[in-house]
Amino acid sequence: MLEDLKEQVLEANLQLPKHNLVTFTWGNVSGINREQELIVIKPSGVDYENMKVEDMVVVDFDGNVVEGNLNPSSDTPTHIVLYKNFPDIGGVVHTHAPWATSWAQAGRSIPPLGTTHADYFYGSVPCTREMTDREINGAYELETGNVIVETFKEQDINPNAIPGVLVHSHAPFTWGKDPAEAVHNAVVLEEVAKMGWKTFQLKPGTEDMNQALLDKHYLRKHGAEAYYGQGKSEVRRS
Amino acid sequence: MLEDLKEQVLEANLQLPKHNLVTFTWGNVSGINREQELIVIKPSGVDYENMKVEDMVVVDFDGNVVEGNLNPSSDTPTHIVLYKNFPDIGGVVHTHAPWATSWAQAGRSIPPLGTTHADYFYGSVPCTREMTDREINGAYELETGNVIVETFKEQDINPNAIPGVLVHSHAPFTWGKDPAEAVHNAVVLEEVAKMGWKTFQLKPGTEDMNQALLDKHYLRKHGAEAYYGQGKSEVRRS
Amino acid sequence: MLEDLKEQVLEANLQLPKHNLVTFTWGNVSGINREQELIVIKPSGVDYENMKVEDMVVVDFDGNVVEGNLNPSSDTPTHIVLYKNFPDIGGVVHTHAPWATSWAQAGRSIPPLGTTHADYFYGSVPCTREMTDREINGAYELETGNVIVETFKEQDINPNAIPGVLVHSHAPFTWGKDPAEAVHNAVVLEEVAKMGWKTFQLKPGTEDMNQALLDKHYLRKHGAEAYYGQGKSEVRRS
Amino acid sequence: MLEDLKEQVLEANLQLPKHNLVTFTWGNVSGINREQELIVIKPSGVDYENMKVEDMVVVDFDGNVVEGNLNPSSDTPTHIVLYKNFPDIGGVVHTHAPWATSWAQAGRSIPPLGTTHADYFYGSVPCTREMTDREINGAYELETGNVIVETFKEQDINPNAIPGVLVHSHAPFTWGKDPAEAVHNAVVLEEVAKMGWKTFQLKPGTEDMNQALLDKHYLRKHGAEAYYGQGKSEVRRS
Repeated sequence: MLEDLKEQVLEANLQLPKHNLVTFTWGNVSGINREQELIVIKPSGVDYENMKVEDMVVVDFDGNVVEGNLNPSSDTPTHIVLYKNFPDIGGVVHTHAPWATSWAQAGRSIPPLGTTHADYFYGSVPCTREMTDREINGAYELETGNVIVETFKEQDINPNAIPGVLVHSHAPFTWGKDPAEAVHNAVVLEEVAKMGWKTFQLKPGTEDMNQALLDKHYLRKHGAEAYYGQGKSEVRRS
Repeated sequence: MLEDLKEQVLEANLQLPKHNLVTFTWGNVSGINREQELIVIKPSGVDYENMKVEDMVVVDFDGNVVEGNLNPSSDTPTHIVLYKNFPDIGGVVHTHAPWATSWAQAGRSIPPLGTTHADYFYGSVPCTREMTDREINGAYELETGNVIVETFKEQDINPNAIPGVLVHSHAPFTWGKDPAEAVHNAVVLEEVAKMGWKTFQLKPGTEDMNQALLDKHYLRKHGAEAYYGQGKSEVRRS
Repeated sequence: MLEDLKEQVLEANLQLPKHNLVTFTWGNVSGINREQELIVIKPSGVDYENMKVEDMVVVDFDGNVVEGNLNPSSDTPTHIVLYKNFPDIGGVVHTHAPWATSWAQAGRSIPPLGTTHADYFYGSVPCTREMTDREINGAYELETGNVIVETFKEQDINPNAIPGVLVHSHAPFTWGKDPAEAVHNAVVLEEVAKMGWKTFQLKPGTEDMNQALLDKHYLRKHGAEAYYGQGKSEVRRS
Repeated sequence: MLEDLKEQVLEANLQLPKHNLVTFTWGNVSGINREQELIVIKPSGVDYENMKVEDMVVVDFDGNVVEGNLNPSSDTPTHIVLYKNFPDIGGVVHTHAPWATSWAQAGRSIPPLGTTHADYFYGSVPCTREMTDREINGAYELETGNVIVETFKEQDINPNAIPGVLVHSHAPFTWGKDPAEAVHNAVVLEEVAKMGWKTFQLKPGTEDMNQALLDKHYLRKHGAEAYYGQGKSEVRRS
């Protein structure tokens, strides 16, 4: 079942080591079939080099394994919460990529400092609050999803315009319309985290970029007025 | 038409990922035929690995596509302004290379701190002022070119002696006598940006290098008295 | 003799350059056969590319060479002290990997700042005190082992829960149930050292992570209640 | 003539890009035949990938080209001064490797902070004073050699025990008993410069390492009492 989606999810997982986003097996990608409300996700603790299409695990919205012989990623409940609450997303990525993770460990959101950021994220990439002991000792991975959703709701952030988050003392999650775009955004987030870090070292207290410039770059690539690339479906730029 | 120049521009574009200056398609190179006033430039949003000679786009000084089936880079109007105002340059490069971009995001010029810088840039690599909302909301890419030209004019900088600039909150542009030299200068700028950054972390407030040393290194490689390399056309050093 | 262990130790040594943990021959891995109290260790000063199974040196608990034509690593006495005092470990690694070594040179322990750390190290990775002149001028490599053991005893740290240490003004040692796991922990320590360093640059004075979160991540992978991966023997995560 | 030495010098030059010490052609290695007082050095501005044995240039102690069709490196006079004043060295390397160059640009010597440093450099790697305008405008490359020699004489440093230097606002030179060892020391210097830099960011004002530890590590590898490696000629360690 869902063979096409399994192929997409496998390929997206294999992109993580190619883009130097993971050490060992520290990362996972999932994709969703919205009509069937079924999620395909990487199995837990399997090496990327040996991963095959048939290793992908299919789970439903309650986390039950519908198909597959291996345990799904231990982060599966977090992915499910994101799919339930962010209705337009089709793929989710989690990594411990070092630059974004360092911002998460510092508990700081990544502010928009330049057009690279603005081309993909329409404002700061938020860092969640710390989780409470109750949340940690309860359904931890599900609560991780909840604290992400809470962050977007309380700060009135549109997850389609800010396709990523830093979980406090943990690491980033990103998402997109499909697994490939979610990985694309994970690569961009790491690049933006790196350049933001270097910028702050060079000039502590750097202010956010001009709002008009943020608008310009984000909107020339996204939405009805986009004129970037070879057509509306294009998400890259030159 | 302009098949030789298209080959040069393609090859120069392919050098960007080889020198680790680009993520995805975040960069572009163009070249100019001065006699015909025609510019060859990379198409917008096309992957480097699939780019072919026939994908290169030919535009005139008004930005009209003269030949090519793809949209030219969205940064084309910036390139055109540079060619119009800097009459000796034959190639232009734009990247979001991380070290130079971090200086641009901090809004800081890169001062000359050592002979590596002095071998290629005869003084600070300037950072432009922030663009105004009017400029951003107007002909943005053209105005980006204008603010670069303004920076060189107002500070009385010779673009042949300082073949690069940082656009505030954005990223670097470099140029040269042809597309290959423009890429060469992009590589040098990234290296100089990296070493300058590390120098300032080690010693905040580092002063500019001795003017006599700057003169010596720049002039032994450039101009009438050059004695570096195997002959006058040589731009590299050992 | 001990051909299986020699193969494991050779393979573990070859993993060091693959994970970019060593420059030249600056690193060594050993493994132990607890029943025979014999240690297999890399020879001193031999290039990784030419290392063969038969180059591995077998030594006893007194440091006598039992088999092998080459000198054992000059750090052999340190390894022996660790095996004698940490009875559950089966492999030891020493490198001068740059991030962990920089913490060692600063004389600072690496505090737990995020879940990457917590997945492998159940608390700070300690830095030893400086060694005394008497220790340095005496049986130096043996005393290096002693100061590591002292650090764990005096601070009441369980070496099974914190499988690594920084030797002051020197570099890290890590260990594990076998040579492969010791290398795995060396890779993780370098990653944790890198991210901790970046975190402190971003936010000086960052506090340790929440204890409940540290417990959660460490204990979901280690001990009786572990639920991570495909089964109890699994040490990786996704 | 000197075919063996040319092979050594070529091979040593080719090691520079392999160890990521050079961008483009920014580096050069030479070797000397002490009996004939002839130096073999890389030609100026030739790409590493195309360099052949017959491109190596032979010069005498006055800098005259004795054999070879290409111009010698423009840094040749600096190499000659070093060979004349440091009678035990057989090879010299110059690079603009980024970490060491950043220390040179900051005008700071690299103090001994750990055993990696102590294994190769028996004290601080000094940074020269700034050169005067007269020196720069005179026989610049020769004066560069002179200011290096002055640094070692005035501070009473033994160039055999400290086989490297930072030239202020410029970059490092290293040397050794032959071209290969000079390159080896260039690699070590870059590693030591990197780790020292990271250490100071982590702990500003870090003090020099314990003198007894410096003695121990340097002397266990160098001199009459050395016990490291497989024999007296061994310079590497494990």
